[in-house]
Amino acid sequence: MKPDAYAANCPTRQILDRVGDKWAVLILLLLRSEPMRFNQLRRAIEGISQKMLSQVLKSLERDGLLRRRAIATVPVTVEYSITPLGSTLAEAVDPLRDWAEQNLKEVLAAQRRYDAQRKALAA
Amino acid sequence: MKPDAYAANCPTRQILDRVGDKWAVLILLLLRSEPMRFNQLRRAIEGISQKMLSQVLKSLERDGLLRRRAIATVPVTVEYSITPLGSTLAEAVDPLRDWAEQNLKEVLAAQRRYDAQRKALAA
Repeated sequence: MKPDAYAANCPTRQILDRVGDKWAVLILLLLRSEPMRFNQLRRAIEGISQKMLSQVLKSLERDGLLRRRAIATVPVTVEYSITPLGSTLAEAVDPLRDWAEQNLKEVLAAQRRYDAQRKALAA
Repeated sequence: MKPDAYAANCPTRQILDRVGDKWAVLILLLLRSEPMRFNQLRRAIEGISQKMLSQVLKSLERDGLLRRRAIATVPVTVEYSITPLGSTLAEAVDPLRDWAEQNLKEVLAAQRRYDAQRKALAA
């Protein structure tokens, strides 16, 4: 069977879900520069809850995109680092991030036009 | 202010949400080949509900990524086509789709290893 993201039961669609997870993407892009501890990640990503961060880290580890390493300090330190597979995914995300930064103004302008038009139609 | 997807109130994060919407991505990639009607889209994307499709189409139109055109047939036909802005986004998504298709097996294998390890630890 050929991978087909349009078929409900195709695993490429699961991967698209993962890739489409805002938090997952932000975490992978951060870990690309250096391994980080849980609290460092939490501070770096505004608005993520402890529970959500822990969930996303687990699923990224399960997908083989990051590695979790407990270091025998007191108290134990847990460090997360990106895997080679995770790095290739982060690279594939770059054009998207660039797009978002470059086209931000245009999207916001389109939203304002759309809302103004709706308002005019409703009046 | 520099765009910063890690800040909770930065609009790039909204765009990342949009881009990270699986349905939105699937719709844009489809419309890249040709304009499509509502029911055509619904049939092409397995598992999407009528309500969800209609919601996603509205938000893509609001973002300026697609155009909605009512054609005066009986009954009225509504056709969706991608905008130039939408096309540039679809292009930026290509590397991700390629990644998903190429690394599908590796991700699934990582998931199996992870689950087997957890099961062994729990036993």
